[in-house]
Amino acid sequence: MKELKGACVIGQSGGPTAVINSSVCGAVMTALANPNITKVYGAQNGIEGVLKERLFDCGKEDEKELLLLKSTPAAAFGSCRYKLKDARQDETDYKRILEVFQKYDVRYFFYNGGNDSMDTCHKVAQYFKKVGYDCNVIGIPKTIDNDLACTDHCPGYGSAAKYIATSVSEIALDAGVYDRGSVIIFEIMGRNAGWLTAAAALANEIGHGPDLVYLPENPFDLEQFVRDVEKVYYAKGSCLVAVSEGVHDLAGKYISEYGSNLAQTKDAFGHSQMGGLASTLAALIKEKTGAKTRGIEFSLLQRCAAHCASKTDIEEAFAAGKAAVESAVAGRTDCMVAFVRGEGEPYSCHTELFDLGEIANVEKKVPDSMMNAERNGMNEEFVRYALPLIQGECDRPTEQGLPRYAKLKKVFTV
Amino acid sequence: MKELKGACVIGQSGGPTAVINSSVCGAVMTALANPNITKVYGAQNGIEGVLKERLFDCGKEDEKELLLLKSTPAAAFGSCRYKLKDARQDETDYKRILEVFQKYDVRYFFYNGGNDSMDTCHKVAQYFKKVGYDCNVIGIPKTIDNDLACTDHCPGYGSAAKYIATSVSEIALDAGVYDRGSVIIFEIMGRNAGWLTAAAALANEIGHGPDLVYLPENPFDLEQFVRDVEKVYYAKGSCLVAVSEGVHDLAGKYISEYGSNLAQTKDAFGHSQMGGLASTLAALIKEKTGAKTRGIEFSLLQRCAAHCASKTDIEEAFAAGKAAVESAVAGRTDCMVAFVRGEGEPYSCHTELFDLGEIANVEKKVPDSMMNAERNGMNEEFVRYALPLIQGECDRPTEQGLPRYAKLKKVFTV
Repeated sequence: MKELKGACVIGQSGGPTAVINSSVCGAVMTALANPNITKVYGAQNGIEGVLKERLFDCGKEDEKELLLLKSTPAAAFGSCRYKLKDARQDETDYKRILEVFQKYDVRYFFYNGGNDSMDTCHKVAQYFKKVGYDCNVIGIPKTIDNDLACTDHCPGYGSAAKYIATSVSEIALDAGVYDRGSVIIFEIMGRNAGWLTAAAALANEIGHGPDLVYLPENPFDLEQFVRDVEKVYYAKGSCLVAVSEGVHDLAGKYISEYGSNLAQTKDAFGHSQMGGLASTLAALIKEKTGAKTRGIEFSLLQRCAAHCASKTDIEEAFAAGKAAVESAVAGRTDCMVAFVRGEGEPYSCHTELFDLGEIANVEKKVPDSMMNAERNGMNEEFVRYALPLIQGECDRPTEQGLPRYAKLKKVFTV
Repeated sequence: MKELKGACVIGQSGGPTAVINSSVCGAVMTALANPNITKVYGAQNGIEGVLKERLFDCGKEDEKELLLLKSTPAAAFGSCRYKLKDARQDETDYKRILEVFQKYDVRYFFYNGGNDSMDTCHKVAQYFKKVGYDCNVIGIPKTIDNDLACTDHCPGYGSAAKYIATSVSEIALDAGVYDRGSVIIFEIMGRNAGWLTAAAALANEIGHGPDLVYLPENPFDLEQFVRDVEKVYYAKGSCLVAVSEGVHDLAGKYISEYGSNLAQTKDAFGHSQMGGLASTLAALIKEKTGAKTRGIEFSLLQRCAAHCASKTDIEEAFAAGKAAVESAVAGRTDCMVAFVRGEGEPYSCHTELFDLGEIANVEKKVPDSMMNAERNGMNEEFVRYALPLIQGECDRPTEQGLPRYAKLKKVFTV
């Protein structure tokens, strides 16, 4: 392994999470302290910032503000959804990246994102190998979807899971205050993997969770769904349902595409109820049971609610950023930092590196073994897996009763 | 004033809040310690629990669990939306209440709720006066709507306001991560009074708040709304809008009733976008500007998110419950506990009593003086009013990374 000395670039990509900035904080602080790293650049809007030479000098930021990144949600460096073309078809972007990296003598590149970002990382690393440019490229995982391969779990998932489980428990209490109960349907993010929807079930650990959980891993049968809800509602007088935005029928058609054919229920003003999946399913259940129903979408809140972040997640996200820098300096490239869970209790977790080639574009689904036999609820195996990830409260600083977020100066190079 | 000795009944009514149980906690703990109060009964589901004789003995609860009520959202005693008839038309309910109260020698009645509940309180107090039954009746305010008369503000408002402002700031950060901005429309509760929608503007104090705020206090002009949004969006590249669910046009028609006539925009699947007000307005803006838009409804979360409650609100809600019991024992009846703000800085607040007759069925609106001249934003007067109410973080106990809520035994009398 050759020792590299030079600048590093850190970028963020894809949908943000409550703790993606904690990873960046771990990477920046570690890089600033490392003698082999001469400059630490942030790329504005991920790889787009590299292409456009929008790089800012992290060494000019106040340390206090950098540390506040640990509790600042969203992508403080700016994000993008830019997908690099295959270098065999079109080398334009790669040549430009190389040009910019050469100009600033960049020898380390850290990219913080989900599946697509790991693909970007892998392509860049492969290109540098091909052209013989010495630059170590390490992916730092993040995604509330928790669907990256090789890693036990992804930074960002624990906080989103904690927010979902906490909010579901609060709404469960709220929904139980009248003597006549209702049916509430929660629509939760996760187009192909149900990890986040499954997290709603953690609220059952304190007795205020969903009665039914539907993941996109299993075909969604509308008639069975109605029977499931009716059974719970007639027995308990209320029913809480967590459903993934990505549920689809046996033929693969998304239930959210069924639209107005699903239920003809009108709202108080005589309009057809359509809107999102949650409100569509709520209208269907209202039509079938006469129950008072409500659809609730957690929308963007589930990925940015830093006020309800998991301390475990914040610390692990930081550790992932730190490990990325340390591994790159130690000579690793074309790898992603992954979490490996220790055997037995209590929960422990350490970082290891996996080849990006094994990770890029692979989606990790919730295994059957974590669901009940009816595929409408989670079991103990899932709880053992997920519960450790939501432990601990974040103690973020506040200002006037509101969160105090990091304020970066972003002194650009050009 | 006659000194009364006997039992008390405490009930909750109307939509719950994050801190309504803190008021009940204040009332129960104070009543249990008072020598003039022989028994402390909770009424299951408010006045319905009295009518059905569903009373439980608070003296049989564990003190530790009772104290957890301070950080438990929703109505732990159960709520109702039962409206008493005018006693001049129908005395049935009143006679039944009297019968139950006489059976248990109830001499104090505390009712924790909003406008309708204060009406119930007032009617019961008047009836007891008429028939000469000695029982002191005190209303304990609660409502996220903040629309009760005579009081500076209502318990429940500060926590809902803190949740809204915090969540808006988090989403503002999230929405700003891409180089292409978007238009996000937040739909916030408050059919007739815009206090809660106005609270979104508090997020501007930390630089991440809405660009535009629309309250139901002013007629909502759709064309002006589109012009306002376009102006911000074209200047900044993004626009965040907080809009009250109750906005209506000059003729009084709710904008949410406009439905599909408003925008013909289809979603990705070719369906008309209808749904709620937020998504309807988002579709309209998308049609007019081509911007990426999103409608977000805070739904039930804004009234039950105890995980983001204001410490000030929790403590004041407790104080209101305590003051109710102390005032009743001191001989007051047919009154509501109200908050009076001290002059000048720093913020201070004490409780006083106001006649229920002045309060019942009066709605307090946001005054013009708290809005900007264009009526699309809040000004400094509003910030000075609302900011003190969201101060302080709740330090609720947790269990397995989730909130530890009060668990009541509810030992019923029959």
